[in-house]
Amino acid sequence: MFSPEIAPVVNIADLPQYEGQAVTIRGWVYHLRSSGKVRFLVVRDGTGLVQGVLVKGRLPEEDFHQFDRLGQESSLILRGQVRAELRAPGGYEVEVTGLTPLHICQNYPIAHKEHGVGFLLDQRHLWLRAPRQQAILRLRDELARACRDFFYDRGFVLVDTPILTPTACEGTTTLFATDYLDRGKAYLSQSGQLYLEAAAMALGKVYCFGPTFRAEKSKTRRHLMEFWMVEAEAAFYLLEDILQLCEDLVRYLVLRVLERRNRELEMLDRDTTLLSKVSQSFPRLSYTEAVVRLQTEGVAITWGEDFGGDEETRLSQMFDRPVLIHRYPRQIKAFYMEADRDNPELALCVDMLAPEGYGEIIGGSQRVADLDILLARLQEYHLPQEPLEWYLDLRRYGSVPHAGFGLGLERLLAWVCGLKHVREAIPFPRLLDRLYP
Amino acid sequence: MFSPEIAPVVNIADLPQYEGQAVTIRGWVYHLRSSGKVRFLVVRDGTGLVQGVLVKGRLPEEDFHQFDRLGQESSLILRGQVRAELRAPGGYEVEVTGLTPLHICQNYPIAHKEHGVGFLLDQRHLWLRAPRQQAILRLRDELARACRDFFYDRGFVLVDTPILTPTACEGTTTLFATDYLDRGKAYLSQSGQLYLEAAAMALGKVYCFGPTFRAEKSKTRRHLMEFWMVEAEAAFYLLEDILQLCEDLVRYLVLRVLERRNRELEMLDRDTTLLSKVSQSFPRLSYTEAVVRLQTEGVAITWGEDFGGDEETRLSQMFDRPVLIHRYPRQIKAFYMEADRDNPELALCVDMLAPEGYGEIIGGSQRVADLDILLARLQEYHLPQEPLEWYLDLRRYGSVPHAGFGLGLERLLAWVCGLKHVREAIPFPRLLDRLYP
Repeated sequence: MFSPEIAPVVNIADLPQYEGQAVTIRGWVYHLRSSGKVRFLVVRDGTGLVQGVLVKGRLPEEDFHQFDRLGQESSLILRGQVRAELRAPGGYEVEVTGLTPLHICQNYPIAHKEHGVGFLLDQRHLWLRAPRQQAILRLRDELARACRDFFYDRGFVLVDTPILTPTACEGTTTLFATDYLDRGKAYLSQSGQLYLEAAAMALGKVYCFGPTFRAEKSKTRRHLMEFWMVEAEAAFYLLEDILQLCEDLVRYLVLRVLERRNRELEMLDRDTTLLSKVSQSFPRLSYTEAVVRLQTEGVAITWGEDFGGDEETRLSQMFDRPVLIHRYPRQIKAFYMEADRDNPELALCVDMLAPEGYGEIIGGSQRVADLDILLARLQEYHLPQEPLEWYLDLRRYGSVPHAGFGLGLERLLAWVCGLKHVREAIPFPRLLDRLYP
Repeated sequence: MFSPEIAPVVNIADLPQYEGQAVTIRGWVYHLRSSGKVRFLVVRDGTGLVQGVLVKGRLPEEDFHQFDRLGQESSLILRGQVRAELRAPGGYEVEVTGLTPLHICQNYPIAHKEHGVGFLLDQRHLWLRAPRQQAILRLRDELARACRDFFYDRGFVLVDTPILTPTACEGTTTLFATDYLDRGKAYLSQSGQLYLEAAAMALGKVYCFGPTFRAEKSKTRRHLMEFWMVEAEAAFYLLEDILQLCEDLVRYLVLRVLERRNRELEMLDRDTTLLSKVSQSFPRLSYTEAVVRLQTEGVAITWGEDFGGDEETRLSQMFDRPVLIHRYPRQIKAFYMEADRDNPELALCVDMLAPEGYGEIIGGSQRVADLDILLARLQEYHLPQEPLEWYLDLRRYGSVPHAGFGLGLERLLAWVCGLKHVREAIPFPRLLDRLYP
């Protein structure tokens, strides 16, 4: 298919290693420009961008004229000499000695100008090629990788929890349902937590990291119908252990991208001094303290009410680091949360809010360990017992205190990248009104 | 919740580091045995098993008598002195100086005897605690981790492809469908490939690793309704590159578990000499050669027919290593596969079969790069064009040769562990007749 190349085929990102040498680059046209007898051709290959310079007479006449046929996103093979060029982005350029178009196109829909976000989302399969979108995807890759490193290094075992579940645990209104062959309805998982609890009783410390689904009729900048969540669960962990684990994780993740993906953060014009604040310890305050702080700032909230997007935004603007808010009223939290012994109205739970107004990125809690309390909770929350018998078994056979949390990847990434909306934080967003492409 | 401990709380797996020292262990009763004035207590904590020895008079009388109340899977805190004991599994035991039950149970359903698989699957949330199941889960974790290492180290970017998709690409008969709010049906993804192709045109080399769904009415030892698949796609890759990449990947994965999870393979009584054959290069044969070999062995198959489970089993028994079978007839393969220039009846595709009768673990191909050919294919396969417009765009704007493959995690794990059925290769299997727990 490809003719053998004399010069090695190299990635644009690796060009500095080839200074002064002949190379072959395979990629796509990003930008074209003419100036007298010189043609400039910015090429991308997924690893980076480089400028190729075509000087008439220094490459075959036929190759030189191919330039005129090219349009944005045409694919091609470029041969040339790598040289340092301080004015070029990345510090290197290629003096082109050969150009072979692979597939010429002239009418690429996403031109170098402003487009509306609706149009761009329709073209998501092409929009991914934009350098900004590539940078976001690389940051997403690094964060996901770092999550896995964090847990692997700490002895947490990956336990993939099922997506198809028989139980509509927290009500059916926000669940996607499907027919499970002829065995009734199955529901797409909103969280792997209950299954992780079973696995934690087997393996001690476990985590899962997979897609999660909420058929929520919310059209906000923080909601996706399908998003990725990393969840951890550990036997013998108490709320305090989870507070520490969450803080350690988020610090690790942010420092990791600062260390390894600085180029991408720069491309996004991200102010990294704000991110580097995670080195310091994260403020912790109780729900009750948080309510007082909101009231002091004039927010109309009463003790016992849940925080909405607005309250979260306000709270998350009060600190320059992520903040841990713990011990919410039990009545506004899920059935499985352990009550605080010192005040049974409170749940042993924690939310982490990202700064700069990004709001909740983590939710976690210590889980009810006692069978009778859990049975009473099912009644209190009007949940059916039968489909949860297996979950109750965890309290029948060697129940132990345990705790866990979930971190939303897209919300974390949106904060790390400084995105206005989570829709850019996932390769193919599924929104209230969008299932295509 | 827990009283402060004088001795450090340690993992059973780390006990060798504490020889001669006092430690605290938190875990569950695995086995109980009395012999005169001595009580033996095997405890598990998710990291391993250790025997505790209770000698009357060497621990508080009250703690000694707690032993009689314990049943299998009761949870407890054990305090004691670590000592080397050659006869003990793992080479260490604990002389118990204190025992505090946390939750006592007497009627754990999974006793130390043979149980039917139907019963065990009903108790999957508890069955995970069996040492054999723990070993399988740890091997799964390691394989999944190694897949990600392999791609990360080679510059493949993780691109999570959507689960909810608008297109019923390869027919609706094996698809799970759900109502996407009020925007019509969405289908659960059977493969991220088409989306990965879009991402490969942006980032060059990409992969995804997520759950995949097939509502297949097959009740075989190789089928799950929900399973995990790692898929890779690379721009400018040809079939030959994919053959090499698949071989490199599977070799890397198997050598990795041999290196890091030998203890678990031993627990499963796996013959690792069979696995270590992956060091040698994998045999490659064309579909046509494979048909001849099957016919020579008396299998009734005609050129042009697809291999079923039986043929795969036979082929995979002919070699002591994974075998790569390439260039199947185009008519029995998917619409997106590039035809072989030398014989357009053949598809540029490959299946990898695991040895020992395990059958297909990988399917891959070079993809059609030309728009007109792809349009003709859609007609030929009676596929609608409109929902695939975005996919066609990849051939309209800078199309390049590209190729990729998918590896089924459970099938690979079943082979690596020597399991008879894939149902043990996933934490919570979803089978034709099973959606619980």
